[in-house]
Amino acid sequence: MPVQMQLSRIIISDINPQQIIYLKELDGDRQFPILIGECEAQSINMGVKRLSSPRPRTHELLVRAIEQMGGDLDSIVISELRDHVYFAQLRVKRDGELIEIDSRPSDAIAVAVACDPVLPIYVAEDVLEESTGS
Amino acid sequence: MPVQMQLSRIIISDINPQQIIYLKELDGDRQFPILIGECEAQSINMGVKRLSSPRPRTHELLVRAIEQMGGDLDSIVISELRDHVYFAQLRVKRDGELIEIDSRPSDAIAVAVACDPVLPIYVAEDVLEESTGS
Repeated sequence: MPVQMQLSRIIISDINPQQIIYLKELDGDRQFPILIGECEAQSINMGVKRLSSPRPRTHELLVRAIEQMGGDLDSIVISELRDHVYFAQLRVKRDGELIEIDSRPSDAIAVAVACDPVLPIYVAEDVLEESTGS
Repeated sequence: MPVQMQLSRIIISDINPQQIIYLKELDGDRQFPILIGECEAQSINMGVKRLSSPRPRTHELLVRAIEQMGGDLDSIVISELRDHVYFAQLRVKRDGELIEIDSRPSDAIAVAVACDPVLPIYVAEDVLEESTGS
């Protein structure tokens, strides 16, 4: 069963191109970091702070594109950890069908926080165990 | 009538957060610059150079999301210049319908060059006249 998580920290460095976000269990204490790029970190930071832009930011465009195509963003899930790389999916409902769109976790989380309300963020139990060593 | 353009130059600066791209008429000499952000400039640069990533970049994700929702990306158009801000649309066909998705030009061009083949890029004649002073 996937475990619902929340974004608990964003650490943005000016001197390092790799940024760090932490996901923490909603109903528990396990947490783990994911290294992400600068652009996605900026977008997540803007989304979390609900900073509005006069024109759609890239992940807002992604949300609107999916909505205009008749999709209903349901949640995001980090489903796999392979060779130190996390794999995620955007889960979209359309016409009673569930469509899963392959994504990096950083883009998926940026999409989650660009939605209002923020989309639920899930992590597969085995990924969580491997990431937290528990 | 919109005029078909091509991306003729990308100028990436390490010291300036504003980057510059130039669009040039396909069947003519008129050209004009657009100031864009670093993230979108990086994405356009990767797209133009056909640099592959092991995992989908943000604009590749956008293209795949639209395709998985049953959409067929047709072209992009820069349709308006208002208070020094360009407005663009992604034009997507689905079930015989044309869907226009409001976008910044930078994201639209990043989407265009993330497609294979690259999507046609159009600029409205009045926007081209105002931008080139011709």
